[in-house]
Amino acid sequence: MTEFTSTDLDGEADAFRDECGVFGIFGKADASAVVTLGLHALQHRGQEAAGIVSYDGSQFSVERHVGLIGDTFTKPSVLARLPGSRAIGHTRYSTTGGEGLRNVQPFFAEFAGGGFAISHNGNITNALTKQRELQKRGAIFSSTSDTETLLHLIAMSERELFIDKFIDAVTQLEGAFSLVGLSGKKMIGARDPLGIRPLVLGDLDGAYILASETCALDIIGAHYVRDLKPGEVLVITNEGLRSYFPWGELKPRFCIFEYVYFARPDSNLEGRNVYETRKMIGEQLARESPVDADMVVPVPDSGTPAAIGFAQQAGLPFDLGIIRNHYVGRTFIQPTASIRHMGVKLKHNANRKAIEGKRVVLVDDSIVRGTTSQKIVQMVRDAGAAEVHMRIASPPTAASCFYGVDTPETSKLLASRMSIEDMRDYIKVDSLAFLSIDGLYRAVSEPGRDNACPQFCDACFTGDYPTALTDRDGTETTRTLSLLAKHG
Amino acid sequence: MTEFTSTDLDGEADAFRDECGVFGIFGKADASAVVTLGLHALQHRGQEAAGIVSYDGSQFSVERHVGLIGDTFTKPSVLARLPGSRAIGHTRYSTTGGEGLRNVQPFFAEFAGGGFAISHNGNITNALTKQRELQKRGAIFSSTSDTETLLHLIAMSERELFIDKFIDAVTQLEGAFSLVGLSGKKMIGARDPLGIRPLVLGDLDGAYILASETCALDIIGAHYVRDLKPGEVLVITNEGLRSYFPWGELKPRFCIFEYVYFARPDSNLEGRNVYETRKMIGEQLARESPVDADMVVPVPDSGTPAAIGFAQQAGLPFDLGIIRNHYVGRTFIQPTASIRHMGVKLKHNANRKAIEGKRVVLVDDSIVRGTTSQKIVQMVRDAGAAEVHMRIASPPTAASCFYGVDTPETSKLLASRMSIEDMRDYIKVDSLAFLSIDGLYRAVSEPGRDNACPQFCDACFTGDYPTALTDRDGTETTRTLSLLAKHG
Amino acid sequence: MTEFTSTDLDGEADAFRDECGVFGIFGKADASAVVTLGLHALQHRGQEAAGIVSYDGSQFSVERHVGLIGDTFTKPSVLARLPGSRAIGHTRYSTTGGEGLRNVQPFFAEFAGGGFAISHNGNITNALTKQRELQKRGAIFSSTSDTETLLHLIAMSERELFIDKFIDAVTQLEGAFSLVGLSGKKMIGARDPLGIRPLVLGDLDGAYILASETCALDIIGAHYVRDLKPGEVLVITNEGLRSYFPWGELKPRFCIFEYVYFARPDSNLEGRNVYETRKMIGEQLARESPVDADMVVPVPDSGTPAAIGFAQQAGLPFDLGIIRNHYVGRTFIQPTASIRHMGVKLKHNANRKAIEGKRVVLVDDSIVRGTTSQKIVQMVRDAGAAEVHMRIASPPTAASCFYGVDTPETSKLLASRMSIEDMRDYIKVDSLAFLSIDGLYRAVSEPGRDNACPQFCDACFTGDYPTALTDRDGTETTRTLSLLAKHG
Amino acid sequence: MTEFTSTDLDGEADAFRDECGVFGIFGKADASAVVTLGLHALQHRGQEAAGIVSYDGSQFSVERHVGLIGDTFTKPSVLARLPGSRAIGHTRYSTTGGEGLRNVQPFFAEFAGGGFAISHNGNITNALTKQRELQKRGAIFSSTSDTETLLHLIAMSERELFIDKFIDAVTQLEGAFSLVGLSGKKMIGARDPLGIRPLVLGDLDGAYILASETCALDIIGAHYVRDLKPGEVLVITNEGLRSYFPWGELKPRFCIFEYVYFARPDSNLEGRNVYETRKMIGEQLARESPVDADMVVPVPDSGTPAAIGFAQQAGLPFDLGIIRNHYVGRTFIQPTASIRHMGVKLKHNANRKAIEGKRVVLVDDSIVRGTTSQKIVQMVRDAGAAEVHMRIASPPTAASCFYGVDTPETSKLLASRMSIEDMRDYIKVDSLAFLSIDGLYRAVSEPGRDNACPQFCDACFTGDYPTALTDRDGTETTRTLSLLAKHG
Repeated sequence: MTEFTSTDLDGEADAFRDECGVFGIFGKADASAVVTLGLHALQHRGQEAAGIVSYDGSQFSVERHVGLIGDTFTKPSVLARLPGSRAIGHTRYSTTGGEGLRNVQPFFAEFAGGGFAISHNGNITNALTKQRELQKRGAIFSSTSDTETLLHLIAMSERELFIDKFIDAVTQLEGAFSLVGLSGKKMIGARDPLGIRPLVLGDLDGAYILASETCALDIIGAHYVRDLKPGEVLVITNEGLRSYFPWGELKPRFCIFEYVYFARPDSNLEGRNVYETRKMIGEQLARESPVDADMVVPVPDSGTPAAIGFAQQAGLPFDLGIIRNHYVGRTFIQPTASIRHMGVKLKHNANRKAIEGKRVVLVDDSIVRGTTSQKIVQMVRDAGAAEVHMRIASPPTAASCFYGVDTPETSKLLASRMSIEDMRDYIKVDSLAFLSIDGLYRAVSEPGRDNACPQFCDACFTGDYPTALTDRDGTETTRTLSLLAKHG
Repeated sequence: MTEFTSTDLDGEADAFRDECGVFGIFGKADASAVVTLGLHALQHRGQEAAGIVSYDGSQFSVERHVGLIGDTFTKPSVLARLPGSRAIGHTRYSTTGGEGLRNVQPFFAEFAGGGFAISHNGNITNALTKQRELQKRGAIFSSTSDTETLLHLIAMSERELFIDKFIDAVTQLEGAFSLVGLSGKKMIGARDPLGIRPLVLGDLDGAYILASETCALDIIGAHYVRDLKPGEVLVITNEGLRSYFPWGELKPRFCIFEYVYFARPDSNLEGRNVYETRKMIGEQLARESPVDADMVVPVPDSGTPAAIGFAQQAGLPFDLGIIRNHYVGRTFIQPTASIRHMGVKLKHNANRKAIEGKRVVLVDDSIVRGTTSQKIVQMVRDAGAAEVHMRIASPPTAASCFYGVDTPETSKLLASRMSIEDMRDYIKVDSLAFLSIDGLYRAVSEPGRDNACPQFCDACFTGDYPTALTDRDGTETTRTLSLLAKHG
Repeated sequence: MTEFTSTDLDGEADAFRDECGVFGIFGKADASAVVTLGLHALQHRGQEAAGIVSYDGSQFSVERHVGLIGDTFTKPSVLARLPGSRAIGHTRYSTTGGEGLRNVQPFFAEFAGGGFAISHNGNITNALTKQRELQKRGAIFSSTSDTETLLHLIAMSERELFIDKFIDAVTQLEGAFSLVGLSGKKMIGARDPLGIRPLVLGDLDGAYILASETCALDIIGAHYVRDLKPGEVLVITNEGLRSYFPWGELKPRFCIFEYVYFARPDSNLEGRNVYETRKMIGEQLARESPVDADMVVPVPDSGTPAAIGFAQQAGLPFDLGIIRNHYVGRTFIQPTASIRHMGVKLKHNANRKAIEGKRVVLVDDSIVRGTTSQKIVQMVRDAGAAEVHMRIASPPTAASCFYGVDTPETSKLLASRMSIEDMRDYIKVDSLAFLSIDGLYRAVSEPGRDNACPQFCDACFTGDYPTALTDRDGTETTRTLSLLAKHG
Repeated sequence: MTEFTSTDLDGEADAFRDECGVFGIFGKADASAVVTLGLHALQHRGQEAAGIVSYDGSQFSVERHVGLIGDTFTKPSVLARLPGSRAIGHTRYSTTGGEGLRNVQPFFAEFAGGGFAISHNGNITNALTKQRELQKRGAIFSSTSDTETLLHLIAMSERELFIDKFIDAVTQLEGAFSLVGLSGKKMIGARDPLGIRPLVLGDLDGAYILASETCALDIIGAHYVRDLKPGEVLVITNEGLRSYFPWGELKPRFCIFEYVYFARPDSNLEGRNVYETRKMIGEQLARESPVDADMVVPVPDSGTPAAIGFAQQAGLPFDLGIIRNHYVGRTFIQPTASIRHMGVKLKHNANRKAIEGKRVVLVDDSIVRGTTSQKIVQMVRDAGAAEVHMRIASPPTAASCFYGVDTPETSKLLASRMSIEDMRDYIKVDSLAFLSIDGLYRAVSEPGRDNACPQFCDACFTGDYPTALTDRDGTETTRTLSLLAKHG
C-alpha cells in the first residue's frame, strides 16, 4: 500500500489511513514540550491535527491545532500557554466524527470532582448506541467523536471514587481503545481487553510516560519499561503505579496490520521490532512466490523494508527504481481537466535509466482500491521495464477495519470483489502474489494462524472481527446529527 | 458616560460596557443574511464577537466570529455556510465567562429529540449554583457561560414535550434574560418575569422576527408588532404564534438605563422613543440644575441628545466643542511610558477655537469611575474654557449591575465612595449636577419613582435589586474552573 | 455629501473619497509610536492602508499594513520593528495606482548616497508623462504610484547635493503635493507652488513635526508653529530649519473643499477653524435660501456643523432626525437579490418619532452622484416627514478633481448633467438649494470670488484648474501597464 | 551530508542548503498549473518560497508565496489569478539578499518596451559592484537580490532590440546563472558561459519547457529535448527556437556537486543519471576504502544511493539502521535548556534491534560542519553498534561556494581546519574515509581530474574557482544597505 496524503488526484484515498497516536508524561518540567516531541515521533499515526492538555498543579490548559506538530506546537507562544509538569497529547487522522477542531483531542471535561482530559487511539464500536442512551438521560454532546461518549459515561456513573467511575465507564465500551487520561492527581493508561491497539510504558529520569510506540520514547531518550497488558488500567500518581484488570485475563488479539504498515520501522511492539518483522515478511514472500527477475524495486517508503528482505532472500539486486517526492503538502492541486489527463506524477517518479529493459519485482505493503498500484505499474512500464512482477507484503485486504483505521467501505476494496488473477489483470502486471495468512503469522514468529483461537486481530484480511459491532449491527447505522457544520 | 472601547489607556474600562443583542427570523429565504443585517443594527449592544445558527429544514449550521459583523459575517463564503429560511443570531460584549470563541453565542445542543440553539441577552444570577447541581447529576459543561446552564436544565428536565422542558428550565432561572431559541420546528422568544431586558416582535412579509430593539427592524424595513410581555414565552411555528405565561402576571421592572445609555436613539422601547426620552432627560436636567453659561457642549456621542434638550430648554447655543474620532479600533496603542505621559487624546479632541474664553456646560450621560470625566474636563480647560460646568443626564451610579451589563465592581464606582461635592473636586469642574431619580422617572413620563413598588429596574442608581442574587450571596462566590484557558 | 465607506450597496462610491494624510517627527524617542498617533488623528484622510518608515541613526525600517491604524500599527511587535527617533508615516485612500500593498506609502529608495523615504498627499498631474521619459532612460518602476516618479527624478538628477537633486525633481512636477521626506540626516517638508493641499509645522518638546492637519498636533499635545508656505521646501536637520522657495513667490490657491468636507472640524487650516467655517457656511446658506420649516436635521456626520449654523441663523430647532451607525466595516454585505430589494439601511436610519408630521430641512455638505441623497430623502419621507427641503453646504460639484481626491468621472456627477430644478425632481425634495460660490467665499471671510485671480482652488465647482493637466491632455490618457495584478 | 531543514537545534545549518529551481512553459493552456507541477518536482532545490509569473497575451500576473508549492500555489484562487498560456516560476532557498517576500522570484520589471519577468538559479559574483555603478546612474533597487541587477542592466542598455539589451546585460555578469525569462513575445533561457548550473529544454505537446532538472519534465510527461549549452541564450517564440552564443565557445565547468547531493536521483544532467552516478560513487568508495564490517547503513535519504552501491560492491548487507522522520516542518522546537540537553532526535532515530552488536559502515554524502555527523555517530553507538566506520561519498568540502549554494563560511567547514585523522577523532568513528577527487571524476566516467583544465566546477573541494569573484575581492565586501527590514 502506498500512503497518499489526504487528497488523491481522484479525490478518494487509496490507503488505509493512519489512525491516532497518544502520548503522556507525568512529573517532568516543561511536560508539554516533551509531549510535543513525543507526538512528533508519532506523526505517522495522524497528520491532520493534534492537541495537548497540560496541568500545572492547579489548572488545566488546552491547545489544539490543525496541521503538523512541527508547524503548530513548536511555537514558544503555544508552549507557554501549556504550563505544568504533567501533560497528555494526541495526534490524529480523523476516523469517526465530522471535521473541525472540536473533534481534535485530547477531550476535556469539567466533572463535579474536577477536570479530566483524555486521548484515544482506536474506535468504540458501540459509541453511538451509548450516546443515544446518554442523551435520553440528559447528556449534551459537544462533538461527534466516540471518545466523548466515554466522558459522559464517567460523568453519569454512580460509583463514588473517580477510578471506579472510570472503570465503570470503560467496561461499558466495545471495540478498540488505547487511552491516556489526565486528572488533577493521576495519569491513567488503559487498553481494551484484547489489546488491539498498542500502548507502552516508558520512564524518563523517573517521570512515567505512556506512548503508542517505542519510537516516541527514543526521540527523548526515555527508557522502555513494558507494553501495557490487554485489559489493563494503569494508574500513575505521585505514589507510583497501580494496575487494575477489570475484565480479568483474556487472550490478546493485537492488530497484525501494525507490523505490516502502521507502526514506524524503528518501533518495537509487543516484543517484536517492526523493521525486522517487515524484512522477515519480505523473506517469507520471496520463499512463497519467487520470481525470475533482474532487480527488486520497493514502492517507497512503506514497501522498502519488505523489498530489502525479498532481495536478500532472492539474491537479487535491490535498487531505487522509483523516487518519492516527500514535499507533498496537505492538499495538492485540483488540476484542470486538461492537466488531469496528463497523468501527473506528484509523489512518485520512475527512474528510467535504472529500470529500462529490466525485469522488475515491485514490492508494496498492500493493495487497497488498486488505483495507485495501476498507476505505479503503468509508470514503471512507461519507463521501459521489460517485465513487471508485483509482490505484496500481506494477504489480500478484503474487509473494513472498525477499530480506528480509516478504510474504504468493503465494496471498494479490490480484494473483496476480484480474484487474484483478476487483480493481476486489473493492475496489469506479469505476475502478482500476496503473502499467505499463515506466512504472515510465520513472519511474526508464530507457527501459523490458530484458526480456533487466532493470536492477532486480522479482521481486515479474514473478516473475523474479535469484538461486537453493536452500532453497525443495530438500527443506528448512521450518525444522524442535526448539526451540519460548526465553524469557529 | 463616555463609551471607550475595549482598552482604555489605563487598561481599565471607564464605562458600563454594552451587553448583548439578539435577533431571529422565522420563514424568510436567506435568513442568515437578514440576521446579519439585524445584528449590524444591534452592534452597539456588543462589539466583541457574534454568531449565527441557521436551520434549513433538515440540518443546523453554526458560525461564530470575533469582530464586527460587517467585517466577519458579510463574506459570501460565511453566509453560504448558513443555509436555510430560519436563523437566530447574537452579538456580544463578554459579560460572564472567560474569553474565547467557545463562549460566543448562539449556543447549540443536540438533545435526544433534536437540535436546539439559543441566544441570550441578560445575566442569570443563579447560574453557578445550578451548574454545580447539574454537574453532580453528570452534566458536562463545555463553556463558562451562564447560558449553557439553561441548555442542561432543558436536557435534564423530566417533562415530556419540548416546550414543557423549556418552561421547566427557564422557571428555574433567576436574573435577567431575553432569549431567542431555534429548534427544528420552532422559534421561541422569552423574557424574564420582570422584563428587565428588551425584546420586540416584528414582521417582514409574513416572517416573524424577534429582536432586542426596533432599530433592528428598521434596517430591513420590517414592521414592529409589539414588545414581548415580561414573563412571556412566545412560540413561533408554521402555524403561527402561541404565548405562555408560566410565572403568571407580574409588575414589570424594565431597565431604565436602556433609555439613558444602552439603546440606540432611534429605537422605541416599551412604547417610548429613546432619542425623545434623552432630550426630555436633558430638559429635566436644565430645569433641575440650570447654569449661567455661554454654550452647551455634548460629550459625544452618548451625551448629544441630552445636550440638545438641555440647550433648547436653557436657551443656550448648542455647539460641537469636542470632536470625536470614530476610527478607534478594537485595541489601541500600549504606548511607552514616555508617550503615555503626553496625555494622548485618542478618541476626543477639544475644538479650541470654539470654546476658548467661553463658559461651557458639558453634558454627559453618566459618570462611572470618573477618570474619563477628569480627562475630558482637563482637555476642555486646556483649550481655554473660562468655566466648565458638568451636567450628568442620570443619577449617580453607585451600584453594580448583575443583569447583563459589565460594570466595574461597586467600590470602583466614583459615586459609591464620594459625595457630589467631592466628585466635583475630583473631576475639577466649577459645578457638577446629576439628574434626580425622580427627575429621571419624570423624563420617562412617570410622576416620580414609586418607592414601594418601583416601575423600573434602577438598581445601578438605588442598589434596589429586583431579583435574588443567589450566586453572589451563596458560597459560590467565584467561578472556580479547572480549565485555565482553551484555545483552538 | 455622505461619506460611505468603500463599498456602497450599488458597488459604486457616491462620495468624494478622502485623500491622504502625512505625518513626520524628527528627534523624539519612540518616533514611530508618535507617528502612529498622528496618523490615527488623520485617519479621516484615508482608511485603506498606512505605512511608517523610521530611522534609528544607521538603518531605516519600513512597515506597511492594510487597515485602520488602530488595528495594525498599535501592536507592540509592529512598533518594535520601527526603532529610532525619526519617522514619517502616511495614511491613504488609494487615489492613483492599482490596489495592493506595494502602492502603500511611504515609499523608500536606496540612492547611491543613502536611503530616502517619502509620503505624499496630492496628485501629480504629469506623473505618467515623466514616467515614460524615465523608463526610456532605464528607470524600472516597482509600483503604479505617481509618487515613485519623484523618487526616480531625484535618483536621475545630475545635481551634486541631495537637496539640490530634490529641488530639481519637485520643480519638474505639476499638480498638488504636500510631501514629507526622510533621509539619513534630514526631514523635508514641501508644498506645491499653489499650496493646494495643507501641511503644517508643529513642535513637541523641541522635536519638529510635519502634519497634514493641526488635529494631528493636538492628539499628542504638540504646539502649532505655522502652516508651510505654498512652494516652500523646508529642511529640518539637527541644526534646525532652513527654507527654500524654488518657484519664487506665487499667489496661493488652497483647496476650498478642505473646509467643506475633507478636514476634521477641530483642525485649523491656513488660519481658519474648520468647524467655525462650516457653521458660517450653514449661516450663509440660511441667509441665501431660507425655508419655512419645523426642524433642521443634519445628514450625519459631515452635514452636522453646517446644520447647526443653519438652525441658529434660521431660529429653527436642531434635531437628530437621522441616526448613523458607526460600525460599518471596510466592506459590507453583498446581499442576495431578494435582500437588496429590501432597501437596507446599513448606515443611516430615520428616527420616525422625531420627524413624523414635521417639515424637515435636511442639511448635507454636497451632492456627488445623487443616489445617496435619493435614499436619504426617501427614508425621511417613509418616516412620515410632511415636507423635505434639502440645503447643500457648497455649490454644485460639476467637475472632477485631479489633485488627490478620488472623484467619479465628470459625467457621473449629478450637477454636471442636470439643472438644480432637475436635481430637485431627481432626489424628490420639496425644495433644493446649494450655497452660491460667492457665498462660499464669504463664509471663509473673503468678500467673494475674485474671478480674475481666484483666492482658492475651487475646480470641482468651477472647472477652473489652476495647474497644467499634462497626463490628461496628452496622449497618455490611460496608464497602460503590463502588470495586471501583483499579489504577495 | 544530511540535509536538515531550516533550523537545526543549534540554530545553525550543517548542510549545503539547496539553491533554486527554475521552470517555464510557452504555449500551453493553464500554463501556471503546469509550472506549479514543475516547481513541485523541483521543490528539493528550494523550500522557502516560490513565485510564478504568467502572461495571457495582454497582461502579466504575479503571485509569490512563502512555503511549499503544494501548500500555496495549488489553491484554485491562486491559479485563477495567473491566467494565460505562458508562465515561468521559481522556487528558492534564499541565497543572497535579506529575507522577505520582495526577494522571492520571478522578478518583474516594466520596461519602456513592455513587461519582463525573470527567474534565476545561481549567483552573480559581481552583482554588488554592478549595483553600485547602476545606482550612480540613477537606478533605484527595490530588492537586495543579485537578480535585480540584471533587470537594471537591461533597462539601462543602450542597444535597440530587446534581445540585444538582454545579451548586453548578461555578458556583463560574472558567476553562475541559469535564467528563464518571459517577455510579451518571448521565453528566454540562458546559461552562464561555463554552464555551472543545469538547465534543460523539454517539449509537451509542442509547448517548449525550460527546467532546472529532467524530473520536472517527467512529472508532467514532457519529453526531454536537450540540455542547454554553456553560454547559450535560447529564445523561444511562436516562430520556434533561436540560439545565441555571445561568449563564443568555452569549455564547460558543470557543478560536480549536483551529482553528489543537489539534484534529484531520478534526474539526468548533462547526459548522466544522478542515481546511477551516486551508486558508482558508492562503488568507487568501496574500492578505495573497503572495510571489514557486518552491514552498510545509509544516512537517509541523501546517503542512500551511495550506500546501495557501496554494499553491492563490498558484498555486505544493506540495511535501514537509521529511520528518518519526514514530518519535520519548516522550523522545529526551540526547546528549553532542560530539554535541549536530552539530545532530542527530531529527524533520525537509530533502529537498535537492527544494529545492536554489529560492525556498521555508515555512508553519507558529505561532511559540512561535522556536528550532524557527531550526533548520528553517537546515536548509532548508543544503539549498541560494535564498530562505526564512516564513508563519505565525496572529497572533503574545504571551500565555500559562491555560485548559488548557501554554504557556511570556509572557516566553519570541518575539512578546512582539520586533517582527516582529526576529523575521525572529532566525529568519533573507528575509521573515516572520503572519496578521492580523482575517484569522484571516475564515478562520472572521466579518467580523472584534468588539473590543467578541469572538466567540472569542483571549487568546494579544491578552492579552484572558475570565475572572477569581483564583489568578494573588491572593497564591496558586504552589502551595506540602509534598509534594515521591510515588512508588508
